[in-house]
Amino acid sequence: MKTLVTNIGRLVVRASAKNHEAYNGAALLIEDGKVVASGTRSDVEALAKDAEIVDAGQRLVTPGLIDAHTHLVFGGNRANEFETRSQGATYEEIAASGGGILSTVAATRTASEDDLVALGKKLIDWMFKCGTTRIEAKTGYGLDIESELKCLRAIARIEKETGVSISKTLLALHAVPPEFAGNKNGYVQYALNEILPAAMALEDSARPQWVDVFVEKNYFDPEDARVLARAAKQFGLGLRMHVDQLSDGNGAFLASELGAISADHLEHTNETGIQALAKSGTVPILLPASVFCLGKSKYPDARRMLDVGLPVALATDFNPGSSPTPSLPFAMFLACAQMMMTPMEALAGCTVHAARSLGTSSEVGSLEMGMKADFVIWDCEDEREIPFWVGAPVVHQTWIGGMAR
Amino acid sequence: MKTLVTNIGRLVVRASAKNHEAYNGAALLIEDGKVVASGTRSDVEALAKDAEIVDAGQRLVTPGLIDAHTHLVFGGNRANEFETRSQGATYEEIAASGGGILSTVAATRTASEDDLVALGKKLIDWMFKCGTTRIEAKTGYGLDIESELKCLRAIARIEKETGVSISKTLLALHAVPPEFAGNKNGYVQYALNEILPAAMALEDSARPQWVDVFVEKNYFDPEDARVLARAAKQFGLGLRMHVDQLSDGNGAFLASELGAISADHLEHTNETGIQALAKSGTVPILLPASVFCLGKSKYPDARRMLDVGLPVALATDFNPGSSPTPSLPFAMFLACAQMMMTPMEALAGCTVHAARSLGTSSEVGSLEMGMKADFVIWDCEDEREIPFWVGAPVVHQTWIGGMAR
Repeated sequence: MKTLVTNIGRLVVRASAKNHEAYNGAALLIEDGKVVASGTRSDVEALAKDAEIVDAGQRLVTPGLIDAHTHLVFGGNRANEFETRSQGATYEEIAASGGGILSTVAATRTASEDDLVALGKKLIDWMFKCGTTRIEAKTGYGLDIESELKCLRAIARIEKETGVSISKTLLALHAVPPEFAGNKNGYVQYALNEILPAAMALEDSARPQWVDVFVEKNYFDPEDARVLARAAKQFGLGLRMHVDQLSDGNGAFLASELGAISADHLEHTNETGIQALAKSGTVPILLPASVFCLGKSKYPDARRMLDVGLPVALATDFNPGSSPTPSLPFAMFLACAQMMMTPMEALAGCTVHAARSLGTSSEVGSLEMGMKADFVIWDCEDEREIPFWVGAPVVHQTWIGGMAR
Repeated sequence: MKTLVTNIGRLVVRASAKNHEAYNGAALLIEDGKVVASGTRSDVEALAKDAEIVDAGQRLVTPGLIDAHTHLVFGGNRANEFETRSQGATYEEIAASGGGILSTVAATRTASEDDLVALGKKLIDWMFKCGTTRIEAKTGYGLDIESELKCLRAIARIEKETGVSISKTLLALHAVPPEFAGNKNGYVQYALNEILPAAMALEDSARPQWVDVFVEKNYFDPEDARVLARAAKQFGLGLRMHVDQLSDGNGAFLASELGAISADHLEHTNETGIQALAKSGTVPILLPASVFCLGKSKYPDARRMLDVGLPVALATDFNPGSSPTPSLPFAMFLACAQMMMTPMEALAGCTVHAARSLGTSSEVGSLEMGMKADFVIWDCEDEREIPFWVGAPVVHQTWIGGMAR
């Protein structure tokens, strides 16, 4: 069965800062969940005999957005802290009184797997409504064997029950849990020698493809990342890293040296780090919503990264504390308004570059022939409107694998 | 026919900074588009014999949001300028090259009434999806008789075709149009002696209830506002004012002196102005999204206004240049994160206080008995989550006059 999406006002087949492929007056032909043809209406319609017709009503169509950095699974939320901060409390005060990330750890440990699945499905549905068609999801709010595994199993169930591919990342090295307070090294040993092997013993669908680590003062240091990288190699897992978020820790350089597929955050990355990324092929994933929601003003130097030719990816950093937004269009808005990325560069960041950071470039991220038919029909005329109408429900329909959600 | 909305997890009947009325485990009974009863589930269900049942699924229900300051009707959009700014151009450069507000004036003059209605209906639908149930809409991109009247007629048609009440404001004194360049006084005479009477000669449905003026250096000065206020009085119209947005022009004091129902913007309002508002009863309408989207950091002193007891209202300032967001939850987020309003104060700002600024307090803004059944069922547990999940589609259903949209 073929589906022809036609009367497309504008079709972005592949977003790129310098060589995007787009057509005004276009169509898209789908079969078996994949793109058979995309381009001008006359070219595509010539191939579309017997196809079911979908009228895009002159709207914009782009590849589906890919969110390459999310903390999808957690218990509770921290709307109470949002209120407390509006009354003048600082993050530090909130953390000192038992709030912050450790309050989410407590809520995640208490939650049942069913609770996590129910909340995660609601949240991923919000993402679909914002145009996201594929995500990465990290653990990191369990921080003990039982809870980290519960989160991985919850992610696998969300994937199965929603039909959306989710790249799974074990982020045991997210923070030192209370029972290891003052004994970071003990926790690292526990995480690598006990949580990681247990995660790898899970059934296929729940097993992680990636490990991740938060390298930052008072969290984990470069030596922990090196040990994790060796363990990852033994298990055949890829490495992702949270680096240079709150301070310049030479994290981009370290991620490049360790062969990480992505270096995420990069707010304080220096020129040496940018040059290292350019040599290593490590993808920079920028998370402007976390800068914004934390009330900070130091954004990553996206312009410099783009100018040296890096494939700059954008993600939401979706989490219940520092970045509670599921919206990639909102991240795109911040990328344009605060990091001086053009709307097309921002769209490339949420499509081709995000796909590259997940090792799925041959499958998703563009609407070229043979790619998965993940796309968005937008209530817009061109890609500049996706970030422009900030906070607006600009998505008309989200399609995953050739099916409207 | 009665409708019972029950199994409400939490019901905010009336938002208020200090004396809100809310129930956990609640229900809402509607008849003929109005609230018959609201409160605890057992109290309300006792009155609900033969009612049609709607299950809120333990969700949060609040009064519908009221957007008391929008520029709903215009031609085109300025997404192209958003792109140009991401490439480093300043607002001043864009305006100097023919962009900015005058580019919207040109597009609005060129647009047909049908064009304006079609775009306006799309935009108001976005607002519904963000939880808005009633709005104010200003002209101000026509700036000649024919175009200002075309905008008023378009607003009337949008109101009729969507079934939503729209408070109409004639904002002829928004900017000096090109044909009066260098002759502001000539334009003011034209606006008051020709546009205003022509607007008042329109059929009932298109006639404005309010006039408005942008008091600012290089736009209109206090004397223009005084003349406008006298003309408004002659025609029996109420006065709204854009004041103290870009500089402290003693605008809040002026608005109070002239008996304006609202003083909007107030980014630079001084203590004298705040005290004057407190005496006059003029409602401050704050527009944090325009501060944010303009890339500025000076927000109005909401905290001081609340502390002296002012009924601080929030609105989007929705327009195609400086504030392209139709989302009141986004304005609420900025109010909490940037102006230190609590989520409940922000909700009061978009409900009871906004209603007061439109002179409709007896009709909308709360869910007390006899009020219009305009409400939102949110995909949230409590009102703190409305701003917290910034950019998320947190609205489950928007109801206007007892009917789901």
